[in-house]
Amino acid sequence: MTKRLVSVSFQPSGRTVDVPAGTDLFRLMANLGLKHSNTCGGKGKCGKCKVKIEEGFHALNPPTETELKHLSPEEVGQGYRLACAVRVPPVPSFSVRSPSSGPSTQILQTEGTPVYVLPDPAVKKYAIHLSQSGLFREEYILSELKERYGVTCRMDYTALTMLPAAIERGKTSVTCTVYCRKTVTAIEPGDTTGKCLGFAVDIGTTKLALYLVDLNSGKELVFSASPNPQVLYGDDVMSRISFAMARKGNLIILQKILLKEMARLISDCCVNAGISPNWIYEGCVAGNTCMVQLFLGMSPRNLAFFPYNNISRRGVTVRTGELPVRLPVHRAARIHTLPLIAGFVGADTVAARLAVELHDFRKPQMLLDIGTNTEVVLSDGDGSIACSCASGPAFEGMHITHGMKASSSSIDRVSIDPETLEVTYSTIDGAKPAGICGSGIASAIAELVKAGVIGLNGRFGDDLSRRTKRIKTVNGKAVEFVLAWRHETAVDTDISISQKDVVEVQKAKAAIYTGCTLLMKQRGITADHIESLVVAGAFGQFVDKESVRTIGMFPEVGNDRVHEVGNAAGTGARIALISLPKREEAERMARATEYYELAADPAFVGTYARAMLFP
Amino acid sequence: MTKRLVSVSFQPSGRTVDVPAGTDLFRLMANLGLKHSNTCGGKGKCGKCKVKIEEGFHALNPPTETELKHLSPEEVGQGYRLACAVRVPPVPSFSVRSPSSGPSTQILQTEGTPVYVLPDPAVKKYAIHLSQSGLFREEYILSELKERYGVTCRMDYTALTMLPAAIERGKTSVTCTVYCRKTVTAIEPGDTTGKCLGFAVDIGTTKLALYLVDLNSGKELVFSASPNPQVLYGDDVMSRISFAMARKGNLIILQKILLKEMARLISDCCVNAGISPNWIYEGCVAGNTCMVQLFLGMSPRNLAFFPYNNISRRGVTVRTGELPVRLPVHRAARIHTLPLIAGFVGADTVAARLAVELHDFRKPQMLLDIGTNTEVVLSDGDGSIACSCASGPAFEGMHITHGMKASSSSIDRVSIDPETLEVTYSTIDGAKPAGICGSGIASAIAELVKAGVIGLNGRFGDDLSRRTKRIKTVNGKAVEFVLAWRHETAVDTDISISQKDVVEVQKAKAAIYTGCTLLMKQRGITADHIESLVVAGAFGQFVDKESVRTIGMFPEVGNDRVHEVGNAAGTGARIALISLPKREEAERMARATEYYELAADPAFVGTYARAMLFP
Repeated sequence: MTKRLVSVSFQPSGRTVDVPAGTDLFRLMANLGLKHSNTCGGKGKCGKCKVKIEEGFHALNPPTETELKHLSPEEVGQGYRLACAVRVPPVPSFSVRSPSSGPSTQILQTEGTPVYVLPDPAVKKYAIHLSQSGLFREEYILSELKERYGVTCRMDYTALTMLPAAIERGKTSVTCTVYCRKTVTAIEPGDTTGKCLGFAVDIGTTKLALYLVDLNSGKELVFSASPNPQVLYGDDVMSRISFAMARKGNLIILQKILLKEMARLISDCCVNAGISPNWIYEGCVAGNTCMVQLFLGMSPRNLAFFPYNNISRRGVTVRTGELPVRLPVHRAARIHTLPLIAGFVGADTVAARLAVELHDFRKPQMLLDIGTNTEVVLSDGDGSIACSCASGPAFEGMHITHGMKASSSSIDRVSIDPETLEVTYSTIDGAKPAGICGSGIASAIAELVKAGVIGLNGRFGDDLSRRTKRIKTVNGKAVEFVLAWRHETAVDTDISISQKDVVEVQKAKAAIYTGCTLLMKQRGITADHIESLVVAGAFGQFVDKESVRTIGMFPEVGNDRVHEVGNAAGTGARIALISLPKREEAERMARATEYYELAADPAFVGTYARAMLFP
Repeated sequence: MTKRLVSVSFQPSGRTVDVPAGTDLFRLMANLGLKHSNTCGGKGKCGKCKVKIEEGFHALNPPTETELKHLSPEEVGQGYRLACAVRVPPVPSFSVRSPSSGPSTQILQTEGTPVYVLPDPAVKKYAIHLSQSGLFREEYILSELKERYGVTCRMDYTALTMLPAAIERGKTSVTCTVYCRKTVTAIEPGDTTGKCLGFAVDIGTTKLALYLVDLNSGKELVFSASPNPQVLYGDDVMSRISFAMARKGNLIILQKILLKEMARLISDCCVNAGISPNWIYEGCVAGNTCMVQLFLGMSPRNLAFFPYNNISRRGVTVRTGELPVRLPVHRAARIHTLPLIAGFVGADTVAARLAVELHDFRKPQMLLDIGTNTEVVLSDGDGSIACSCASGPAFEGMHITHGMKASSSSIDRVSIDPETLEVTYSTIDGAKPAGICGSGIASAIAELVKAGVIGLNGRFGDDLSRRTKRIKTVNGKAVEFVLAWRHETAVDTDISISQKDVVEVQKAKAAIYTGCTLLMKQRGITADHIESLVVAGAFGQFVDKESVRTIGMFPEVGNDRVHEVGNAAGTGARIALISLPKREEAERMARATEYYELAADPAFVGTYARAMLFP
């Protein structure tokens, strides 16, 4: 994040956190678990989220009319404000006193984006002291859970079968694993409350990212990643759907190969963290609609034909025993898949939104998760609307003559001298180039446009071959621009951008731009209203904003309002793993987000055609 | 049942059922689903269960004071009565007009005891017509279930995975299997509502009895039985508990061998009924506490030591996929074990009580389920109290010199001439005798007592060897009475009753008598108050009441009040299978039944010692 960080301290708890200037104080406090009484949810109606600003008051926006309705002139003079009307000002430090600070909470720092989450996982363990009396041990344990910990539970079959051994003579206590505040899923002898782990996994079409997390602290212990082994059966989602439908038995092949790889990643993490798989009680899964269905063993045939009827949008909880591959986790463990919005706008998008949730949603914000399908979510005070753009894999380096994935030896930045048309480029790791990755393609096309090599319609200009040897022609027509000569490359050929490559990029960026534009139109806003445009996914991590702006991939919002957040889906899966309230929020968010079917918009074709042009 | 059957017809539905004279009209109508409005549950307080007696009025008891409070003299003159005050009179036919007869119901006739149950199973199937619109198929189906059938459900994971194939293009309907009114457990393409089966099984310590039932009609299709294969690891419950605890891995051996035999019985039934195992969606299990725990794979160690702490008394529902042996049933099938009362008073006792539920419980009734442990339940208007008596296996023919199970060649009746002391006997199938079964032992001892061969203290009399050669002596002391001479038997020896056998029977009958007596004492009643003494189990089916009375096995209630009902536990399991309300009643009954620990009663030893005597 490029915004300036402000050190905000809260009294009387004394807690201090660093957040970007502009952060909404009401939401920040809610996320930190600093409860302020309110009955309107931060809409400025109830006037109950009163706080006293003790430092940094001078840099605040003046009290709004709403605030003046709820605060007396004396209170205003003493520095009282309503939290819901205050944004953290761009000062070095800012201090807030809350009349009703809640219990002590923990701050969770996740990599990439700072996210503030109070650990409150779906899985919790409770130790119960065994009494010597009482006939029915199940009823005794359930009543103790209720009396001592306030959790009203039932006990499931697996826990029941563990009970006789757990209460063996001589044992003085047992530990209950409670799922979602309502089901005892496991019972162990003694006090094992200290051992409670979970994993979060983002199942990408091409990559798996798995995080092992301590559920008591919410801390990530280790991380492991690997390619999605389903690529054996197709590079993209559509080819895997075709494979799954081609023959009975193929679906289970896709499910099993994925589960086996997950099992390997979990084992890796356990070894690296030095913990027993038996202490893992839950997994939380993000992934696009197709990946989640394949994980669950649900035929993706519903995604094969337009309109893409969805089976279900809710999060699904599976006992690991119900899966066809044994995962190295506790036998009572559950896996929860996050909800989806609709069509291809899946659990990864929901997770990504969870990860960027902290930003102020009262002003319009746009989230893009760029991939073969690019999902766009536009949110404002009225809610959210989402669509999926068939952007194609150009920005993943696919369907491009010399395209490759963002990895060693791939060209990621290009610069072209507008006078000489000479090229300088860099590769991700400085090695000799073997191809061009998505960000390199965006960069190259942007430079070609700026240098006038490509016209605004995407065609190579005439007479270019007189200016530079880098233009190759067929029948006198320019068809290719060489970025790296054969002798410079690691492959036995020139690396170039072809006319066809340009068209692929035009199609991709037009699809994304059209998605963004039609969503804004639906909400009656323009790019000027967008306060923040958040780009998630690998593409955003390498690309430079200027190239993207030059080729017109996004609405023109100004580079300072564009933020890259990397694998936000993985972060969101971790958030949902360590916070049941956040998971419930994901469920509400998925249901509250309107799905917009781009292909059904009469303006689609015209908008798309115009967006093929460079700006 | 020995009571006279009366043909009772109900208007306006025209339904006719045959029930014993004395049947409570209120309960009969409730069990038949003939709803009469009432707010007091048949206690004569609300006066709302008004019916008009159209035939058989003259044979009724006159209106009670309670009735006269709620009925006008005109109504009484016209034949109006309150159903809760009417018992079916001993007339050939009896006709009742109900002002508010409910919907048409079906009558279920089970073998042995007639039981009137309205089929209303836990598993029901609903066909849903598929619309072409709507994004989320799960939500559409759940809303249709609610709108059209009034069932508010969630969908479980297994059903969700079946959904994509079920809604395949071109299909116009799907069928949902709904469990306990709240969970969709399976979804099939097309309308399969006609195919809905379940099984009920009574897991006895020595025998399995399995019934395949059509859940739509409640009708039994086929029955299959076999020995409990766990006998390989011990004849009685205690030896199996020892085996299970002896070594890790033994518990699963006992569970698996039982499940495999159940699988074989289910397959047998499917073949005999000509149906596919895929249409079986539920099983309902009765059995004693130990058998149920072994079935569920729960270590029975809690039953090894006094006091016998129970793990749980509730009914447990298991997905068949959670069991270590694959049963030949639908993959979404559940198995439900009935609740238990406490200690060894298990799900078989609860099931047996369910099967005899129709009798009038306002007057004290005693239920005995005779086996190695004999369970006694005493019920009256104030509720029920139960105990388990360690009667030992004498009445199962075990621990008796020439004892054997009730089967071919076993002596089941004995008669001894009081003058000559000559013996006549019969065997179950008329074959040459090989031994004596439980009822034969009871009969022989009773005859020996009546003939004065055995004194009231159970000792052989003096000087008997002068009167008959059948007495064998050691040192001049009678030790044995021969029932069948070697040349009459199928075994190469005399078949006789020894002094030790007599003591075994005394111990067994004393245990049962003590249980009955101490329960009555707890409730402040005597044998005279017992309106009905119901004997369940194989023993009761063969024994003659007079023998039992002679040896003083039960309180002295008069033979006309003793009823044998055979395998009531199996009948109860079938009732719980076809009626969720009955299953819920079983749950309430198990919790409402007070458990009485005989061994803790200070009067136990004295009562037991006195009961060792013959009356």
